[in-house]
Amino acid sequence: MDIDTDTAINLDTAVDIDAGRLLRDLDELARFGGRPDGGVDRVAGSPADLASRAWLADRLAEAGLAARTDAAGNVFGQVPGARPWLLAGSHTDTVPAGGRLDGAYGVIAALEVLRTLHEHGHPAAGALEVVSFWDEEGAGPASAGGLAGSTAMCAGDHVRDLRAYLELHIEQGPRMERDGLELAVVEGIVGIERHQVVMRGAANHAGTTPMDERADAGRAAAVVAAAVPDRVLGVDPAMVVNVGHIEFLPGAPNVVPGEARLVVEWRGARDDSLLRAEKELSALAHDTAEALGCQGEIRAVSRKPPAVFDPGLCDLVARACRAAGGPAGRMHSFAGHDAGVLSAHVPTAMIFVPSAGGVSHSPLEHTPEPMLARGCRALLAAVAEAAGRGPAGTGGTGGTARPPRGEE
Amino acid sequence: MDIDTDTAINLDTAVDIDAGRLLRDLDELARFGGRPDGGVDRVAGSPADLASRAWLADRLAEAGLAARTDAAGNVFGQVPGARPWLLAGSHTDTVPAGGRLDGAYGVIAALEVLRTLHEHGHPAAGALEVVSFWDEEGAGPASAGGLAGSTAMCAGDHVRDLRAYLELHIEQGPRMERDGLELAVVEGIVGIERHQVVMRGAANHAGTTPMDERADAGRAAAVVAAAVPDRVLGVDPAMVVNVGHIEFLPGAPNVVPGEARLVVEWRGARDDSLLRAEKELSALAHDTAEALGCQGEIRAVSRKPPAVFDPGLCDLVARACRAAGGPAGRMHSFAGHDAGVLSAHVPTAMIFVPSAGGVSHSPLEHTPEPMLARGCRALLAAVAEAAGRGPAGTGGTGGTARPPRGEE
Repeated sequence: MDIDTDTAINLDTAVDIDAGRLLRDLDELARFGGRPDGGVDRVAGSPADLASRAWLADRLAEAGLAARTDAAGNVFGQVPGARPWLLAGSHTDTVPAGGRLDGAYGVIAALEVLRTLHEHGHPAAGALEVVSFWDEEGAGPASAGGLAGSTAMCAGDHVRDLRAYLELHIEQGPRMERDGLELAVVEGIVGIERHQVVMRGAANHAGTTPMDERADAGRAAAVVAAAVPDRVLGVDPAMVVNVGHIEFLPGAPNVVPGEARLVVEWRGARDDSLLRAEKELSALAHDTAEALGCQGEIRAVSRKPPAVFDPGLCDLVARACRAAGGPAGRMHSFAGHDAGVLSAHVPTAMIFVPSAGGVSHSPLEHTPEPMLARGCRALLAAVAEAAGRGPAGTGGTGGTARPPRGEE
Repeated sequence: MDIDTDTAINLDTAVDIDAGRLLRDLDELARFGGRPDGGVDRVAGSPADLASRAWLADRLAEAGLAARTDAAGNVFGQVPGARPWLLAGSHTDTVPAGGRLDGAYGVIAALEVLRTLHEHGHPAAGALEVVSFWDEEGAGPASAGGLAGSTAMCAGDHVRDLRAYLELHIEQGPRMERDGLELAVVEGIVGIERHQVVMRGAANHAGTTPMDERADAGRAAAVVAAAVPDRVLGVDPAMVVNVGHIEFLPGAPNVVPGEARLVVEWRGARDDSLLRAEKELSALAHDTAEALGCQGEIRAVSRKPPAVFDPGLCDLVARACRAAGGPAGRMHSFAGHDAGVLSAHVPTAMIFVPSAGGVSHSPLEHTPEPMLARGCRALLAAVAEAAGRGPAGTGGTGGTARPPRGEE
């Protein structure tokens, strides 16, 4: 991560968020679907999710703002009568047994920023629209796989009114905490590829078949699973790689596996690294199959290209983070977000705050309150600066025309 | 395999089996549960199995022999009024979609030997009892795991009448064919051990968790599965080893496995090799777990010690094989047989004929007809020689007091 050293943004000390109100609203929202263990069950479309969206509309109305819900279920808020073009928010649905911050923090912080600007009659208020997207997590039984609300919005007319998107989120990993960062500018979301390796050998009696006459598909699959992490990281050590599923068929202790399957997933910010990783896997699988008398086959299960955020908007956000105080850095997100969908359509940037222990999608999600307040102040500074520059001044070159990316 | 060079047995050319009758009876038996693909569905207790046992009793009666079925379902045949002490046979049940020779050949060959001796008024006829054991395969839904009939017989009184057991069987593997052997003396059945390895790490997000902070139980399991064959064969190259089942939990492509399990099975004729293999697996699992930040645990799922056949009876059988013609060898069986159960109670030996391509438990089971006839002649010679020596002259030291072994 690089520390940004551009022109400073000076916080307007007369226009500051109400940190107490921010934290109280986070507490209140966490009651919808709240669990005894401190976690939250608020899967999209559940009664708790629907009630929390009504509650959010009430908070907007209470602040003198106009709330609306679109056909996809996204909840929006804005100054009545304004024509906002700068969208900020996240999502309020959770995974089952999720935490109180993933998504919720970005929505309540955007609400707090809009309330603050509106209360102070700040000119940026009219430019800002807040959003809680529908079904980002994709955890419901009928879900199409997540990012549903942001994808629906980007397929409709409203996205054409927008000139920028900002999303504040907990990191969901331990990198910031490890590096002592309290704020980070997210420059993009890694691409994710999944490839299935199928090894075909010959199922046989595990006693009577001599070792040198076996075509052991399970052994071939195990060799690939054991070796693939180092092969992929050899391509680009900034990537991550996982073998999360493996299967030997027929699966009996006394039968030499005649077929074996595994799924390899890797994530990286660079297109060329993703491609080279695939070539490494292909070579590894075919060499291993040949050495063990099997046939190896690779099939791409899914390819989600990297989302690249807007460099100008990232620079602006970096200066906003510095203005809000605390060491800031730059990083890529290794998890998917609504911002990945938006980035294909409008200049987009994200801000991360750390999650203690790198924990997320868990009742144990936690970020210290001062960091939550600081993240919200960074969002406020970024919104004020971007609004001051106007719809054409948020930086960048616009969307990268990537297809939307799924939540992982 | 060593070629036996003891004193020769001379075949009584006046007393020979009827090879045509042997093959016709094999054909007839294969109709019970016969499949269009040439295979046999005759799982123990099925209507086809019960009908085939009635047919066997009819064949015995037709030959002027006395048939009986015991409480366990075993079918026996003998000269009426005789007090046989030398048992020969195998089983007539099959696995689903099994072949026409596994088990069936040993029963029909024993029938043919008894018929031949009885027809010729040979004195050995009275010593011989033939058997088709109940449920050797253990393939039925209610099966206790196979070897049911032989185990039941050995738990009862009748085994005390016996002084030897001979079983003729197809090899179920390719070793004889590879070595150009048409007959083999089986000196014992390998011991079989199964051990489950459980790796415990930490389930985590496969994107946001840095590679160096993972405790990837799946990777640890894959390393063990890939390396364990060479480690076990390093102990004793005559062993065989298999990883037939592996599982990563929770099993999702985007979750670092928090737990992984595999089952390692090895087979060997030597107790010390079986023990050293376990130590190798233990060291491998613990070293791998430690290197990858996981906890490794090994649990013995089952231990079936080797069955050691009677050396004196094996020598007698070797000479009988040589008398029957065709290259003979000595080997261990890598699959279980009723003879393994019997060997704990009475001097036992087996004769193998090759199975083409090493195929068994398959509709494709095949042994050339001249080899089937030659195996039956070897059994006849062994029975005649053993009977001539009397109940005390079959060789050996009796059973090795091993517990019965399951079919694998």
